[in-house]
Amino acid sequence: MTKERMNDVNNNPVVFPCENLTADENGHLLFVGYDTAALAETYGTPLYLLDDARIRHNCRVYLDAFKKYYPEGSLPLYASKANACKQVYRIMREEGMGIDVVSIGEIYTAKAAGFDLSKAFFHGNNKTDADIAYAMDCGVGCFVADNAEEILAIEAAAKQRGICQKVLLRLTPGIDTHTYAAVNTGKVDSKFGNAIATGQAEAITKLALLQPHVDLRGFHCHIGSQVFTEDVFERAAVIMIDFMADLRDTLGYTAAVLNLGGGYGVRYVDTDPYLDIAQKIHAVSDVLKAACEARAFPVPTIHMEPGRSIVADAGLTLYTVGAVKQIPGYKNYVSVDGGMTDNPRFALYGSKYTCVAATRLTEARVFPASLVGRCCESGDILQENVPFPSTIHRGDLVAVCTTGAYNYAMSSNYNRIGRPATVLLTAEGPQVAIRRETPEDMARLDV
Amino acid sequence: MTKERMNDVNNNPVVFPCENLTADENGHLLFVGYDTAALAETYGTPLYLLDDARIRHNCRVYLDAFKKYYPEGSLPLYASKANACKQVYRIMREEGMGIDVVSIGEIYTAKAAGFDLSKAFFHGNNKTDADIAYAMDCGVGCFVADNAEEILAIEAAAKQRGICQKVLLRLTPGIDTHTYAAVNTGKVDSKFGNAIATGQAEAITKLALLQPHVDLRGFHCHIGSQVFTEDVFERAAVIMIDFMADLRDTLGYTAAVLNLGGGYGVRYVDTDPYLDIAQKIHAVSDVLKAACEARAFPVPTIHMEPGRSIVADAGLTLYTVGAVKQIPGYKNYVSVDGGMTDNPRFALYGSKYTCVAATRLTEARVFPASLVGRCCESGDILQENVPFPSTIHRGDLVAVCTTGAYNYAMSSNYNRIGRPATVLLTAEGPQVAIRRETPEDMARLDV
Repeated sequence: MTKERMNDVNNNPVVFPCENLTADENGHLLFVGYDTAALAETYGTPLYLLDDARIRHNCRVYLDAFKKYYPEGSLPLYASKANACKQVYRIMREEGMGIDVVSIGEIYTAKAAGFDLSKAFFHGNNKTDADIAYAMDCGVGCFVADNAEEILAIEAAAKQRGICQKVLLRLTPGIDTHTYAAVNTGKVDSKFGNAIATGQAEAITKLALLQPHVDLRGFHCHIGSQVFTEDVFERAAVIMIDFMADLRDTLGYTAAVLNLGGGYGVRYVDTDPYLDIAQKIHAVSDVLKAACEARAFPVPTIHMEPGRSIVADAGLTLYTVGAVKQIPGYKNYVSVDGGMTDNPRFALYGSKYTCVAATRLTEARVFPASLVGRCCESGDILQENVPFPSTIHRGDLVAVCTTGAYNYAMSSNYNRIGRPATVLLTAEGPQVAIRRETPEDMARLDV
Repeated sequence: MTKERMNDVNNNPVVFPCENLTADENGHLLFVGYDTAALAETYGTPLYLLDDARIRHNCRVYLDAFKKYYPEGSLPLYASKANACKQVYRIMREEGMGIDVVSIGEIYTAKAAGFDLSKAFFHGNNKTDADIAYAMDCGVGCFVADNAEEILAIEAAAKQRGICQKVLLRLTPGIDTHTYAAVNTGKVDSKFGNAIATGQAEAITKLALLQPHVDLRGFHCHIGSQVFTEDVFERAAVIMIDFMADLRDTLGYTAAVLNLGGGYGVRYVDTDPYLDIAQKIHAVSDVLKAACEARAFPVPTIHMEPGRSIVADAGLTLYTVGAVKQIPGYKNYVSVDGGMTDNPRFALYGSKYTCVAATRLTEARVFPASLVGRCCESGDILQENVPFPSTIHRGDLVAVCTTGAYNYAMSSNYNRIGRPATVLLTAEGPQVAIRRETPEDMARLDV
């Protein structure tokens, strides 16, 4: 295909955000080498696709770097909330990842997938007594405790069971990453954790150390999601090691574990930078080791919690066009058979995505349009100002790229629209990982 | 209870948005006369409550006004998308309402509830061939066709079945209601409908009239949701009647039906105005009849599509507090066991709600806090700056009022959190209308 024929209205060529996306000579989008038109024909639309090999590749980038740069026992933990289904947990099990879980629902699903829950870290700013009991009874390895109420509830539940529960404390190191406010969680003003700057981190540490059935292993922080900036993990590592060394000096408590949380950024559009995550982890480890050396502090066991960077670019969503509207003097609309129900991220955050007419990649993209969903709501927009070919019409296929994270996970049944199926593309062929939700499924809880 | 003891930090008394909310002498919130603490104890939290009598009352306001002011055959249609479950459809059936539906899921559920689908109007900007076939086979009374592609698809499906399908055409009268952009749908620049101003409304009318299996009954417009302004329905009525009279004069086609769409506003907080909907409908009918008279046009059968104003103030959500956090120099957080999963409206639109500590209504509300959910996401906020009593703590009950519309309907399983149960409060006592979603329910589609 010539570069010219793929150009948009501003003469920019289409640039795919990940190498699992290619095009064939007919202008069909291939995902992991599969013709997306054939997949849509077989499985229907809307359809989520997941690239098995890409998920595994992304895990191995973290696993290899952790092996190389961090002490034994260090482990990356997949942040399940990005995409929590049995098949993804099975991949995590096979790849030797740990996981972070945030609810009974995630614990149940991981367990049902055969995941070893001793490698699970239980997160959340609001664990109920029922959550705590369920997690302990399932043998969840470590709780990441958020607040004093939770520490006391863990103590009570552990005492009742005659166990000593491993715990990390969630702290806020006071770093503002300038990512979108809703996914920015490391600053002092946060519903999560305990601020080092206000003395609350030290206070909760003392509280935890006083509990006979709480085994305080160390600390957790989460700076934010979709991080691209240079030094944010490095700054967090230094702040946390300093805090840990201070505690050793003042309380005589030497923490063994440091969990640096999530979230390296992924490429949604071609203006997002490439990140070499292995190199990033290497750089953080250098800074962390230097901080330990400066304070004569033993290098702790390290965890990180990648979610988006494990599954986002392994995902793609296929839609069928239902209507194309040109409003003279205003703008154009391309409506598809999904929308904010399967991907609410534009409605919530104005998130950018790369969107293409999946069977017309050879055509000039000269028809800018709002890509909108089928919900009875004006805010049901998948993306604004997408350059489509002018031939696009009802029945055509549209692909939205990089939808593996926070799409199925955040999907709803708004308008009683069923959630799409997820098909996993493996070396052995496509497999349905999540079946399509039917009207019967949606009404099953109605009395 | 004295007024003083209920005052907030600015000495404002708590004002309930609807008369189904009261307080007892112990400072417990009563909903429809039921002690919310007792309901939470019996059914668990988070919990949606629905006031059966209020839903019926709201229906009757529309039904009575329609009977009084509009020609025979006129009917208010409940906009299902506000809350589409079997029990609500049963109430609509019993009250004699029509319904608007937007998906196979809603049609299926209405049918399962025994609703007579000849009184259903099928909406949506993107009906697939499968949707159209399903709706016709279920006997849905009228399609509200959005675009040319759909007209042709309806014609093909009706021809195949040897029927003539009743159809309204969705038009955009070009009115900007200044409500929130995402719920503002009557302006020319919209994914919905066909603009009168651009000539596209006339063009699609001609197209529809050419189809032998399409019975064009008239037109539909939807100005927007949560409308409080004085004259927006009146302006829409005049524009639509003028358009219909123009069509009669130019094409010789006299439309028999006018559907004015949704959405009178409801009171979420005490600064929202009271609307006398019966009086509003009366005023619109006067303007409409005058417009008809001015053009010597027969007064058409009228429909409106209330959703929010039928169910919103019939709803309440109860939560249990898990943690209270004070961050010196920043703000306070009260975390509850639900959040954006059961009510994403603050995350999506910054929607206002009246929120109270449901067992501490006698205490001074001197502790302003962000009311946040349990999701691992900073944007998981139910409301900012809520005045709580300073004694609020883990285990306390919090009520968010006016959640009957677009809460369960827009809920998700983000973080694999199950959706709350809905309990309908009837004259015969409380009844579970939607049962609580379990981890098994959430994983049931996983392969």
